[in-house]
This record gives sequence, structure tokens and C-alpha cells, in this order.
Amino acid sequence: MPAVHIGAIKSKGIDTKGIVTVQEGKTFHYDSTFDYDLSNRTTNKTELGVVAGFEPVIPAEYAKSEYLYLANNDPKQNIKILRHFQKPKLVVCDTIEFWINGSRDDVIKMIGMADGVVINDNEARLLCKESNLAKCAKKVISWGAKFAIIKKGEHGAVLFTNDDQLFPAAAYFLDEIVDPTGAGDSFAGGFLGHIARKNKFDFATMKEAVIYGNVMGSFAVEDFGIKRLLSITKDDVEARFRKYCNLVQF
Amino acid sequence: MPAVHIGAIKSKGIDTKGIVTVQEGKTFHYDSTFDYDLSNRTTNKTELGVVAGFEPVIPAEYAKSEYLYLANNDPKQNIKILRHFQKPKLVVCDTIEFWINGSRDDVIKMIGMADGVVINDNEARLLCKESNLAKCAKKVISWGAKFAIIKKGEHGAVLFTNDDQLFPAAAYFLDEIVDPTGAGDSFAGGFLGHIARKNKFDFATMKEAVIYGNVMGSFAVEDFGIKRLLSITKDDVEARFRKYCNLVQF
Repeated sequence: MPAVHIGAIKSKGIDTKGIVTVQEGKTFHYDSTFDYDLSNRTTNKTELGVVAGFEPVIPAEYAKSEYLYLANNDPKQNIKILRHFQKPKLVVCDTIEFWINGSRDDVIKMIGMADGVVINDNEARLLCKESNLAKCAKKVISWGAKFAIIKKGEHGAVLFTNDDQLFPAAAYFLDEIVDPTGAGDSFAGGFLGHIARKNKFDFATMKEAVIYGNVMGSFAVEDFGIKRLLSITKDDVEARFRKYCNLVQF
Repeated sequence: MPAVHIGAIKSKGIDTKGIVTVQEGKTFHYDSTFDYDLSNRTTNKTELGVVAGFEPVIPAEYAKSEYLYLANNDPKQNIKILRHFQKPKLVVCDTIEFWINGSRDDVIKMIGMADGVVINDNEARLLCKESNLAKCAKKVISWGAKFAIIKKGEHGAVLFTNDDQLFPAAAYFLDEIVDPTGAGDSFAGGFLGHIARKNKFDFATMKEAVIYGNVMGSFAVEDFGIKRLLSITKDDVEARFRKYCNLVQF
């Protein structure tokens, strides 16, 4: 990762100790095409580059972390990463087409070790071999997750729990979407961030967290890369959360 | 329409006086294919049959009707129909691909004469030549409508008004969808039905009406044709409305 980006992230108060910069090899390269309406993403190319075979090194002081997000990396690596943490309260994972196609068994194993899954609708369908999203969620939960959040791009997200609770949330509405890439990770960050600061994950908190996920995703798509996310403050996030609440109220 | 269907509708207290049965010619035939996820509909064939050139006859006692829904018929016919009504309080129209492709100018003219439009997302994009739904709604409003409701199938609907108000509503969530055909008209019926019984259409009532639209659409897709709609009572509708309210609350 270019030093300028690391500096920018650091300046927002984010701990970057865990970032490893490999000096040789190609960076991870992901090439995709979005449909006319920016809803469906077609993966053209996923080149792992230096990510292939990378053995993650977790800083020792992270071992006591309570809330973990395993991003859409190699599920085998994610399972290894998980061992570095002593007793996380909540582990949430994501995955993508590349791993579903190539390492489906490991994806399912990873899900069994996590508490929750945050996944795109189309990837949930691919993973679960099932078109109905409620049935997909049930399958994910049958593999050991306590909850599944299925993200639907500009259509919001649905939270399903292992005690048959359900929360469909419309997306925050934007007049213009610049680039949907990264919306999913931003969603996960907003979701887990809210849970971590509340330090609880009962259904009511999880529902709020889904909205914070939507809010962070809505910021992410307003510009390319992390540009928009670096420009916003906590106040902006809270303001948009309140705006969302007013928007969907009836 | 087969007499058995007319009888069934009548038995639900619906006025069927306006239904005309033409004795010769083919019935309207619509053939479409839904995607794997039932979201996108591709029209294969639209054969107008007896609907082509049909001159609608409006029973005289309808002339004072206050709330009108112009379904997705020939916009030219819809414009004619409109003349039979003395002073409707609210006129809402719909349209489909067939008319957008063949009679776009008439569709736009019809929209200009209506107060509101209820339209599918993909049809809004086709009609407005624009992929962003908020921009589509603005265009529809620029043609003279006071509001536009864009329906997004299993993803719910969004209401846009000419004073820049916005209401995104998640769809009611179903474990199983049998057939999405007719969901749009059921939505319109639920929407206008609620407005008619409240006899007002301020923003708060319109938002509730969107939810009733979602609720009626959710019933429609639970079986083929009008089967499910004929089996439900007002209490079922209210119960699902309340269930929906609980579902989306956070």
C-alpha cells in the first residue's frame, strides 16, 4: 500500500500496525464490470499477486481484540488468522466469487468458525446454490453462523438470525453513485464499528448496526477508492444516520 | 374474462360493471421470462389481441370517481378514459415496455395528465433513458407528475415527490415467491386503496400507502394469478401491514 495512503488512514486515528507491505511482486488486482444500473457486478479477473500464499502476521497486541472482521481473503488464511486471537466476542466474515468457486469447502468451514457472515446477494446465491435469499441465509446459518447479512447493493441489506429474526433495511438513497467498489467492506466496517462501540450485539443493536453499515456503504460509493471515507467525520456519519432514520420513517 | 373469475371477484365486493367481455378474437397474451432470482423480467411476447383498438366504455356511474388507476394499457386509450371522469382527485398511471418502445410520446403525454406514476425500475430506466432511479423520477416529475413510485420487485419501492421528498421502503420479505406477475398492479391497488379510504394524499398518507402497496404485492406473488388475492381478507392485509411495521422498525 502506498505510504501516502497509510499516512492518510493513520491521520484518521486508524491503527495501521498490522499492514504489511511486500516489496516484491504484483499487487492484488481485481477487475470487474458493473451492469448499466450498477447492481450486478461481473468479475472479469482476480489476480492474487502478493496476496497468494501470504502468511498474515498479526501484531501481538491485537490478540485480545474483541470484534473481528475477516475480509474476503483466502478462507484458509482467514482461518489461520482467527487462531491468533484469544477470545473474540464476535467474528464476522465475508467472501467473494473467487473463493466460492475455488475453495467452497474452506469458505463453509470459515463460516462455521465465525459468528456472522456479511455477503453480497449474488455471492450468497452462488455459495448456497439457491436463488431465494431467505433460503440462502438459512443455509449459511446451518453451517454454524449465528447470523447472516445479505447485502443487495443499492437495494440495502437484510439481516437474518439463527432464531428466525429478520430485518430488511432499504439502502440510503443517493442521486449519484460514482463507484460501488468497496461498499461491502465499508458496510462491514460500519456494522462492526457500531457493535464494538456499543459492546453488545443483541438484535436491536444489530439492526442499528445494519443501518450504520448502509450509511458507511453510501459514503464509500460517492467517490473512487477510499477518497470519500477519508473526507468524512464522525459527525457526518451520525448526521447521515439521523437522515436515514427520518427517510424510512412512516 | 371467464365468468367464474368475474363471479369470484364480485363475491369479494368488487364492482365489475366496467368489465367488457369481447366475444370474438384472442385474449391479451403476455409472455415473459424471469431471471434466476426473479428480479429481472424479460418480455418475450406482448400480443394485444382484443385489447388492440378497444374503445373502453366507462359506466356512467363511474364518472364521479375520485381515485383513478390507469393500468398499463395503451396510453392513448388511457388518455381517452380519463376524459370520462369529471373531476378525479388523484390519477395514477402505470406503463410497460411495450408502450414505452412503441408509443413513448403518448406515455409521456399520459404522465403529464396524471398526478402520479407507478412504474417498475427497469421500465423507468427504459422510459427515461437514464440508469439512476432518482434521476428517472425527476424526469417523470418534469413531465408533469406530482410523484413517481419506482417499484423494485423483491427490493421494495421508492416514492419521489415533486417537492423533493423521498421514501425508500424495503419489500415485505417472503421465503417463497411463486409468481411475480401481477405484483405491480396489486401494489397500485393497495396504494390507491389506502389513499381512497383515507381520502387524502399528504406525504405521510402516501408513505403508508406505499407500505400497503408492498403488502398487497407480497400477497399477489404467493400464488399464480389472482388466487392468493381472492383468499385473503381485510384482516389479513392489516395483520401483514402491522407485521411489516414491526419488521422494519429499529
